[in-house]
Amino acid sequence: MTVIGLGAMGRALAGAFLREGHRTTVWNRTAEKADELVARGAVLAGSVGEAVAASPLVVVCVTDYDAVRELLDPVDLGDRAVVNLTSGTPGAARELAGRVGAYLDGGIMATPAAVGTAEAVLVCSGSRAAFERYEPVLRGLGAETVYLGEDAGLAALYEVGVLGLMWSTLNGFLQGAALARAAGLDAASFAPLAVKSMESVAGWLPDYARQIDEGSYPPLDATIDVHLAAMRNLIEESESLGVSTELPRFVKALADRAVAEGRGEEGYAALVEQFGKPS
Amino acid sequence: MTVIGLGAMGRALAGAFLREGHRTTVWNRTAEKADELVARGAVLAGSVGEAVAASPLVVVCVTDYDAVRELLDPVDLGDRAVVNLTSGTPGAARELAGRVGAYLDGGIMATPAAVGTAEAVLVCSGSRAAFERYEPVLRGLGAETVYLGEDAGLAALYEVGVLGLMWSTLNGFLQGAALARAAGLDAASFAPLAVKSMESVAGWLPDYARQIDEGSYPPLDATIDVHLAAMRNLIEESESLGVSTELPRFVKALADRAVAEGRGEEGYAALVEQFGKPS
Repeated sequence: MTVIGLGAMGRALAGAFLREGHRTTVWNRTAEKADELVARGAVLAGSVGEAVAASPLVVVCVTDYDAVRELLDPVDLGDRAVVNLTSGTPGAARELAGRVGAYLDGGIMATPAAVGTAEAVLVCSGSRAAFERYEPVLRGLGAETVYLGEDAGLAALYEVGVLGLMWSTLNGFLQGAALARAAGLDAASFAPLAVKSMESVAGWLPDYARQIDEGSYPPLDATIDVHLAAMRNLIEESESLGVSTELPRFVKALADRAVAEGRGEEGYAALVEQFGKPS
Repeated sequence: MTVIGLGAMGRALAGAFLREGHRTTVWNRTAEKADELVARGAVLAGSVGEAVAASPLVVVCVTDYDAVRELLDPVDLGDRAVVNLTSGTPGAARELAGRVGAYLDGGIMATPAAVGTAEAVLVCSGSRAAFERYEPVLRGLGAETVYLGEDAGLAALYEVGVLGLMWSTLNGFLQGAALARAAGLDAASFAPLAVKSMESVAGWLPDYARQIDEGSYPPLDATIDVHLAAMRNLIEESESLGVSTELPRFVKALADRAVAEGRGEEGYAALVEQFGKPS
């Protein structure tokens, strides 16, 4: 297998291939990044063309899609399958898919240290034939692989959606940590409760997703009306402790709009209808 | 032990006391709610006064703090310890603490079904003496108990903080689900990735909390500048799929402000400084 781009993630990917016993060829603009991998048995290619020629599967993980095109455009890919794990937009992924015969766009949901472990999830979209052929190899990068469909842009779309969830979650945590700090407590005392509550919320998501797919939102935990009453408390406390009320007000405004549309007696998942509209 | 208020949570609390083998007295405005508990061995008190007199520890879980005051004000509490698990604001908790000798305000982080299990966490603040004396009993409600301090308002503050995290997390999920739906996929295909990413994020929180307590934010995953680039993708994709860009823009505006303050090279936890300011 070939890995092009040896940043922290690229090195982890090549390392996982080596651990799996694959003949692994690597290439990077600055060759020194390959030293450790070469010591572990990887072959350092002298050019991108050489790296591509060496293996039927070429994994690319570089800075951005412009860099991917710059590297691959001059090269004859032949029937090589390209799995592009570079982060980018769905549009950029689709554009690249049009230039490469067997193209898979993907995202690896893992830190570099978790690549190749049971924790890592590899999300792919694009060529179904390439996915089916190389899935056993790709499982060496992440124990779980998810194929979303022929549209090469879907993996990037999901990646961006997962990042959005991450930012929202972190913002919610930071609001709570700011409250704790303003009350003279340390954030470390808030973290265990935050983790606990995230475990609960994670457990609800499959049911929320089912409701969204069915378009029907009977309350699973509490109604939006009940949530709304508690949202006022968050605003009040933030205000009285001199902490920003921006996020609490944003959260409440969304729920207010759902209530105005007559959804106060529905469950929280009904708010997806607010998210689903252009703003 | 006594439980006043037999909604779903109150019944679960009394049920946990019964399972632990405690002599359990219950009271509810509508007595029929006690039927099942009485069948399991609970004693139904004829009045709040009787219920309070029956046990050294009185757990209250009713609609709101007004209801708590209305029930307890006419009653001689003597040296009873009151553990109030009614949801409310820190201010209301402090006010009540001033009227009750041995007062603990608390929140139980669990669904009624999880009360009494290893999953449930009971957060308390108020009388340290009451907490120390009754902690072994309270562990029967939630295997983990957290005591935050003598200020009776702290438990409610943390509860409100945890709710804030929950709403933020759910909103992030709903944005992703709306994107999936707009792209013709089902939310059910997004949920497993969302759950996976929440597990990762939960794993970061203790480190984020430590950074916040130290006031120093070296990047643990990516710098705010790097996050910002990906935030633009989320806005772009939401826009192009006709999904609301409100949440993505909110998220980006926060990061923009941190960058404007020279924090672009710091980690995401540095955004706590944005949350910590009055808005």
